[in-house]
Amino acid sequence: MASLTDFRRVADGVRNWGRWGAADELGTLNFITPAKVSAAAGLVRHGKVFPLGIDFGSNGPQGAFQFRQNPVHVMTVDGGDARTLVEYGPKWLSNTVGQELSSFFDGAQNPFRFNDDMIIMPLQAATQWDALSHVYYEDKLYNGFPADSVTSLGAFHCGIDKVDSKGITSRGVLLDLVRHRKADTYLAPGAPITPEELDEVVAAQGVTVGSGDIVLIHTGWQARYLETGDRGESYSGLDWLCAPWLHEREVAAVAADNLMVEDPTSGVDGTFLPMHMLCLRDMGLMLGEYWDLTALAADCAADGAYEFQLVAPPLRVIGAVGSPINPIAIK
Amino acid sequence: MASLTDFRRVADGVRNWGRWGAADELGTLNFITPAKVSAAAGLVRHGKVFPLGIDFGSNGPQGAFQFRQNPVHVMTVDGGDARTLVEYGPKWLSNTVGQELSSFFDGAQNPFRFNDDMIIMPLQAATQWDALSHVYYEDKLYNGFPADSVTSLGAFHCGIDKVDSKGITSRGVLLDLVRHRKADTYLAPGAPITPEELDEVVAAQGVTVGSGDIVLIHTGWQARYLETGDRGESYSGLDWLCAPWLHEREVAAVAADNLMVEDPTSGVDGTFLPMHMLCLRDMGLMLGEYWDLTALAADCAADGAYEFQLVAPPLRVIGAVGSPINPIAIK
Amino acid sequence: MASLTDFRRVADGVRNWGRWGAADELGTLNFITPAKVSAAAGLVRHGKVFPLGIDFGSNGPQGAFQFRQNPVHVMTVDGGDARTLVEYGPKWLSNTVGQELSSFFDGAQNPFRFNDDMIIMPLQAATQWDALSHVYYEDKLYNGFPADSVTSLGAFHCGIDKVDSKGITSRGVLLDLVRHRKADTYLAPGAPITPEELDEVVAAQGVTVGSGDIVLIHTGWQARYLETGDRGESYSGLDWLCAPWLHEREVAAVAADNLMVEDPTSGVDGTFLPMHMLCLRDMGLMLGEYWDLTALAADCAADGAYEFQLVAPPLRVIGAVGSPINPIAIK
Amino acid sequence: MASLTDFRRVADGVRNWGRWGAADELGTLNFITPAKVSAAAGLVRHGKVFPLGIDFGSNGPQGAFQFRQNPVHVMTVDGGDARTLVEYGPKWLSNTVGQELSSFFDGAQNPFRFNDDMIIMPLQAATQWDALSHVYYEDKLYNGFPADSVTSLGAFHCGIDKVDSKGITSRGVLLDLVRHRKADTYLAPGAPITPEELDEVVAAQGVTVGSGDIVLIHTGWQARYLETGDRGESYSGLDWLCAPWLHEREVAAVAADNLMVEDPTSGVDGTFLPMHMLCLRDMGLMLGEYWDLTALAADCAADGAYEFQLVAPPLRVIGAVGSPINPIAIK
Repeated sequence: MASLTDFRRVADGVRNWGRWGAADELGTLNFITPAKVSAAAGLVRHGKVFPLGIDFGSNGPQGAFQFRQNPVHVMTVDGGDARTLVEYGPKWLSNTVGQELSSFFDGAQNPFRFNDDMIIMPLQAATQWDALSHVYYEDKLYNGFPADSVTSLGAFHCGIDKVDSKGITSRGVLLDLVRHRKADTYLAPGAPITPEELDEVVAAQGVTVGSGDIVLIHTGWQARYLETGDRGESYSGLDWLCAPWLHEREVAAVAADNLMVEDPTSGVDGTFLPMHMLCLRDMGLMLGEYWDLTALAADCAADGAYEFQLVAPPLRVIGAVGSPINPIAIK
Repeated sequence: MASLTDFRRVADGVRNWGRWGAADELGTLNFITPAKVSAAAGLVRHGKVFPLGIDFGSNGPQGAFQFRQNPVHVMTVDGGDARTLVEYGPKWLSNTVGQELSSFFDGAQNPFRFNDDMIIMPLQAATQWDALSHVYYEDKLYNGFPADSVTSLGAFHCGIDKVDSKGITSRGVLLDLVRHRKADTYLAPGAPITPEELDEVVAAQGVTVGSGDIVLIHTGWQARYLETGDRGESYSGLDWLCAPWLHEREVAAVAADNLMVEDPTSGVDGTFLPMHMLCLRDMGLMLGEYWDLTALAADCAADGAYEFQLVAPPLRVIGAVGSPINPIAIK
Repeated sequence: MASLTDFRRVADGVRNWGRWGAADELGTLNFITPAKVSAAAGLVRHGKVFPLGIDFGSNGPQGAFQFRQNPVHVMTVDGGDARTLVEYGPKWLSNTVGQELSSFFDGAQNPFRFNDDMIIMPLQAATQWDALSHVYYEDKLYNGFPADSVTSLGAFHCGIDKVDSKGITSRGVLLDLVRHRKADTYLAPGAPITPEELDEVVAAQGVTVGSGDIVLIHTGWQARYLETGDRGESYSGLDWLCAPWLHEREVAAVAADNLMVEDPTSGVDGTFLPMHMLCLRDMGLMLGEYWDLTALAADCAADGAYEFQLVAPPLRVIGAVGSPINPIAIK
Repeated sequence: MASLTDFRRVADGVRNWGRWGAADELGTLNFITPAKVSAAAGLVRHGKVFPLGIDFGSNGPQGAFQFRQNPVHVMTVDGGDARTLVEYGPKWLSNTVGQELSSFFDGAQNPFRFNDDMIIMPLQAATQWDALSHVYYEDKLYNGFPADSVTSLGAFHCGIDKVDSKGITSRGVLLDLVRHRKADTYLAPGAPITPEELDEVVAAQGVTVGSGDIVLIHTGWQARYLETGDRGESYSGLDWLCAPWLHEREVAAVAADNLMVEDPTSGVDGTFLPMHMLCLRDMGLMLGEYWDLTALAADCAADGAYEFQLVAPPLRVIGAVGSPINPIAIK
């Protein structure tokens, strides 16, 4: 394992602080120029659409950790209320929401009804973007913003609401590690993906990775999870030394179909999530997790086209350190 | 005001049940063909991106009704925990989440930290799509699915999770009613937008509205709300008889920058939300609400181009009758 | 196993509908007279207090079922915000809660700060009362109220808010089945507690059970759970035919230290929770679950006094079908 | 207005740090001895029960501040699901909670059903206890515990879970300021209750206030709120200099029927909540807020008995800085 000293040397090499000004909160999304956005749209040839979001609900992948739960979806008005809410609501003086809702249904002749609902969820419970404020070390977020600017009220700096001006849309490139390793369903745990292997995949697929691209790493974890239902299912991901590889190519963002993009076994002695630190905090490069790449990877393998228009807009949750999303690839 | 009998006649004229098969849950999104998706991408010329989502948080527009609240965003780990969580967590036997979280930060040499958060919100609290299961009458949802299939567990039929296969992406067309009426900021209440006025706007803008388009109605309500902060601020919206206009043109979906797209004063005697009923339940046409069209409208007015690629993917919340979104227009 | 026909015969024998009038929503709490309340207070001799509530939080017993989760406790202001919230809050125009909270801390000289928090929980996640509206069959709640009066807005009839006028306080009687069976920690699964065994325990303990009493059944499950941490740990509870035993003695309520008071293996063919149905729906007798009886049972064994003043006030959650509580026994 | 220097002098005079040992987290609840508990029970004469909790729900008093909302109560299974959940649940593979719940209802002959629910609420949304960790200054909680021991995970020290061993039960004494001032419904704003006035009320009522008592201050705010529905309705409360008065008498806790017990207009220049600081942080004396004293005050006025057994058990929410309660007075 590498040491913190090794880590700091790598971090010094990839750090983008100040590159786009002292006030920048976009990080490597700055690589996505209008020309890039336009070129990405130009990749659409057949009008095929691939939603990459997984299910938000009780069958989601949370469960291995206690601090994140699957989304809880509850109905505040539903089809079972059609007849009786209108009877009880108006009489219910201590239930002012009940009175309000039943008043909408009121009237002897009024057949019109509606359903409504609510969600309670960790913002990173399912398919998501990590905001740049998600991780930090030595009291600094990306671009040197103080880590204690993230209070109980949220992230004053580098919240997810600071990046949606970019869409987020660009050229997406899928790197299919499952296919490259000829794996059955997914990459078995214990074999981190190295920068050299990324180069091999790029070459084998005959695709390029360049400035402003969003790179999608297909590891097969989602397919595996759907087979086994094991929320603690381990996996292989990117070796933390892939961060310089992404840096050199001016990649705008990277996403994978597993819990944390990076490999749980590679790393820096005595720490955790070193690639998160390099990407989010030093480079200002956002990570996407739990993206479902199964159908997209199959289509890319079928037609040999591993590039597409990608659109993955985060919700503008003020001060959030992540956002649930449903990214769309269009070919 | 119109009568329920009038309403039923109109409803009979626009109903799409069975048009795409008895099992269909996509409704008018069926008008969005691969060719349409591809052509929409072809509208991108300059790489200009317009996110249409409003803020999700305490400054949101909820407040006039009790049954929906603004999103509540809470931090489960934040920058204030960097030093002390690692001290108290391990000792806290009755707080297993505390133990788990502090264990990540553990180690004398480990400087790495993360922030995490949660959201609690009505799914239609801010910028959103109504799912087809949002409204109903006479015990039937769109395509005749039984209304009581929407239980406390959510919508078994016509949930928002049934439509993300469409992206949702298509050609977007903005109709700028604020500009057409030469209004200051927004359309003052009491003057519903008629089908005839839509025709006038289409002609004045020199744009077409056709099969598979997603139509955006700029009424200026968001701009007005940001000026006044009045969550109960009234407005003008589409007269309910715009539903046949949308039906004839095979529009795929319609969205506006106000609470409910349709005008609160037009309507059917003794009922509410008649256009919702026609669109969602009879036509299978989704409504988008609280979209922020201010910047997009300004750009369209500036360059005269009122069409663009629109991408508005809903979260795959299983059984939800609506979804928070951040729609993106690309020109 | 018994049949539904058997069940109906028993139900007919214990049903209290109309006994206290057609509008009654108190059920067997009616047995608690002012004289009973007063006599219960008279049982206090030493001023010893036994709180019977378990922990509400991440180490709670939920986990075996998906529809109930452990309480999620989140801080909305905490000790980590003391210095920096006051710096960022005022500048944060899109975070109106942040502005509000920081304004409380404002002022160069003001050292005063506060913490605040929130909870998200199933009302029956931990120590709780079942309201009479918690279960039903054949479309009727207790006293014949229609089951569909429980809408998405809550229970119009027999909500937990209807019973707090009773305190709820009365004489409590602990029946120590663990001691009676000479079990190590808890009653192993598969041996339901019969009415005959209740009689034996009453006799052995030299205690009486009479009108208006609240009976606590010590099965040792909480102690077992704290030992093993196994949320799915099975247990023995009351045979469903204990309902008539409670009925004959005019017991006001019954509680235990396990998930559902009643035994999971006894019962009625093809159904579940028959004792719940008899108690809550037919008799109007509330059930208390997940009460921690370990310390109280030890004290009763030590001094031979199995009776005490019991006070267990439910929160007045309007229309709730259960309430979290922290019951107190005073000896 | 007083200065911070004045405040510090008062604080030095009432501070109980170390009085019950360096590890103490009970504060003035230590004044409640077993003899006191026993004597309090001895005050019960007629078996009259007064629940002091207000409604938890949409008609609650929250609304004046943004950082606290009224409790949101949602049903996770209700009476409208009786028939159809069993039909849709088993088929709904992506909704594992739906499958689980419907499985309970399964079986052609099974008529048994249940309702279940959830709550989302600030812990101090309605009738509540402030835990000693609720406020602090100069980086110290009660007894000198560090303020930063309150992390995003809750209060490691002085959480509400640390005090339920006391019941909380003792002798309660109601001081009826509404009656004393001959006010119509409530104490109009702008006239703080002084220590001298407390002495007058004590004398006029012919009651004593002594060691271990819990003092209830009737200001009439709840009655006023129920009349006007105005959540921002102002009020008079205790002048902050009542803290020494409570200190001298060794009062165990104090509660009122308004938002914050203390008067909003009295105070210390440039600060807020000075009495909270003195009581919670310096004395270790808990405050109860939003207690409904209307019926209890009327009864005390009628029979002239202003003392009673009080039982007010907090929920054992691990690390919470407050707890919802339903306090019970028994006479």
